[in-house]
Amino acid sequence: MPPLGGRPGVYLVSPSGAVPEPDAIARARANLKALGFPAVLDRSALLRHERFAGTDEQRLAALDRAVAHKHPIVMATRGGYGLSRLLPRIDWRAMADSGKRFVGHSDFTFFQLALLAKTGAVSYAGPMAAFDFGGKRVDDLTSALFAETMRGELEILSFESADADAVDCRGVLWGGNLAVLVSLLGTPYFPRTRGILFLEDVNEHPYRVERMLVQLAQAGVLARQKAIVLGAFTDYKLTSHDDGYDLASVVAWLRREVKVPIVPGLPFGHVRTKATLPVGARVGLATEDGMAYLVLAEHSHSH
Amino acid sequence: MPPLGGRPGVYLVSPSGAVPEPDAIARARANLKALGFPAVLDRSALLRHERFAGTDEQRLAALDRAVAHKHPIVMATRGGYGLSRLLPRIDWRAMADSGKRFVGHSDFTFFQLALLAKTGAVSYAGPMAAFDFGGKRVDDLTSALFAETMRGELEILSFESADADAVDCRGVLWGGNLAVLVSLLGTPYFPRTRGILFLEDVNEHPYRVERMLVQLAQAGVLARQKAIVLGAFTDYKLTSHDDGYDLASVVAWLRREVKVPIVPGLPFGHVRTKATLPVGARVGLATEDGMAYLVLAEHSHSH
Repeated sequence: MPPLGGRPGVYLVSPSGAVPEPDAIARARANLKALGFPAVLDRSALLRHERFAGTDEQRLAALDRAVAHKHPIVMATRGGYGLSRLLPRIDWRAMADSGKRFVGHSDFTFFQLALLAKTGAVSYAGPMAAFDFGGKRVDDLTSALFAETMRGELEILSFESADADAVDCRGVLWGGNLAVLVSLLGTPYFPRTRGILFLEDVNEHPYRVERMLVQLAQAGVLARQKAIVLGAFTDYKLTSHDDGYDLASVVAWLRREVKVPIVPGLPFGHVRTKATLPVGARVGLATEDGMAYLVLAEHSHSH
Repeated sequence: MPPLGGRPGVYLVSPSGAVPEPDAIARARANLKALGFPAVLDRSALLRHERFAGTDEQRLAALDRAVAHKHPIVMATRGGYGLSRLLPRIDWRAMADSGKRFVGHSDFTFFQLALLAKTGAVSYAGPMAAFDFGGKRVDDLTSALFAETMRGELEILSFESADADAVDCRGVLWGGNLAVLVSLLGTPYFPRTRGILFLEDVNEHPYRVERMLVQLAQAGVLARQKAIVLGAFTDYKLTSHDDGYDLASVVAWLRREVKVPIVPGLPFGHVRTKATLPVGARVGLATEDGMAYLVLAEHSHSH
């Protein structure tokens, strides 16, 4: 996609869970505007139906309004749960042809992977309005990475990656929330991508993370990747029953099981500091001396 | 399978999580013996490695000892997590050819569905030693249904099924724990069965139950079933954010989405009173006047 110049507008939609705190969205608009991204709010973004931000029909209509609007960026207000059951009713060709930059993570991974599977279009795993821009303080790095990525200025995302495997490869970057990714296995919305897979999750005990990785491995997905990049896995509780079994045990198991380079430390997930990553774009990945380098340059210049 | 006469022996193995309370297993052996099913304990059943009942190699060796032993019934001591990553290393043909009656639920669903997918062999979704026979009091109905099913005496399992759809069909009974079932989607261990699917789960919020059902629906699994039978879904917490969204909402969504008869009320799951169900066997299913009837007779007489 061409870099965005000037002050590109953001259209905020709520395709998943209801927004519990509308004030956060007002703050997000102010923060986005200060960052150079004036944001408008879809008229149904603050609705509530059960735990959802409106009925299925209301959330689908909001996506249609988003792609019809002039603003080039479409950002989810938040995740939660709700996109999964909409997938068969979304016009994927229209979403892709709109040329919008869809941005979000968590439940929004459903949208991004389905879009990739159905059309090959690029979207952006990145911040969402409520959590990332709606607080009293906004993470500077998250803001900067979002702005630079949208403007096509970020050529290399470098991050500390202790214990990374040696890798120097190019491939299509894809992934997102692990639970969402495995929730698409067996469906028409699971991308057949062989590339660089990145994963994060929240509120999932290491044994559940492992169970999901086992499924991806047994489905043949992991072995066909050029690299597996691990973001943050947060907010789980170990118990005495675990007896030393933890996320490091899971990563050790993964390394024994799958002969694909593993690169931990990606600043992405349900954490304050997160990158904005082009899902479906060709990128480079290299590691050296405890650092990892995700090369986005080809993406920002050649698309 | 032919009915078992006399006092059929049970071989107890721990293919999943470590047994936290060995006393429960001693009580289970006493209770099973009193029921007419003397039980022996595999020598590694009480081991612990991290959260597992021994290393992967130890748990695999236990399964091999179980099928080599003379006792006709192999029962898991408990579930937890641990079978998933063993699946590629189990000799499914040897398991099936052993003619053993494998009994368990929860994590043991991995074993049962993989056995069905790889060989078509019947196993039994039913009680496990620690939870179902290891307490101070044992549920009379669980014991009776286990004993009668093992002895081929149970011809019809009838249960209250308020709000059941009208159905009168025959087909292969399969299913078990929903989270385990969806964890096999996309892998070689997911059965291609078109029959009567039964489901239960524990510790899964209704939105997660729905997300799993959405996946099964989008993978085409639900539409090809003759009926969907719902067991117990227990131990989840609703919050104020759910705003009325609950398990009934999920079932209502399922009924709108999938044109397959839904039969709730199956006495099965992470609950005290549970049936012992032949996974992979042909059964009949009918509903009438708020009752459901699972007809096992053909299974117990003609196999």
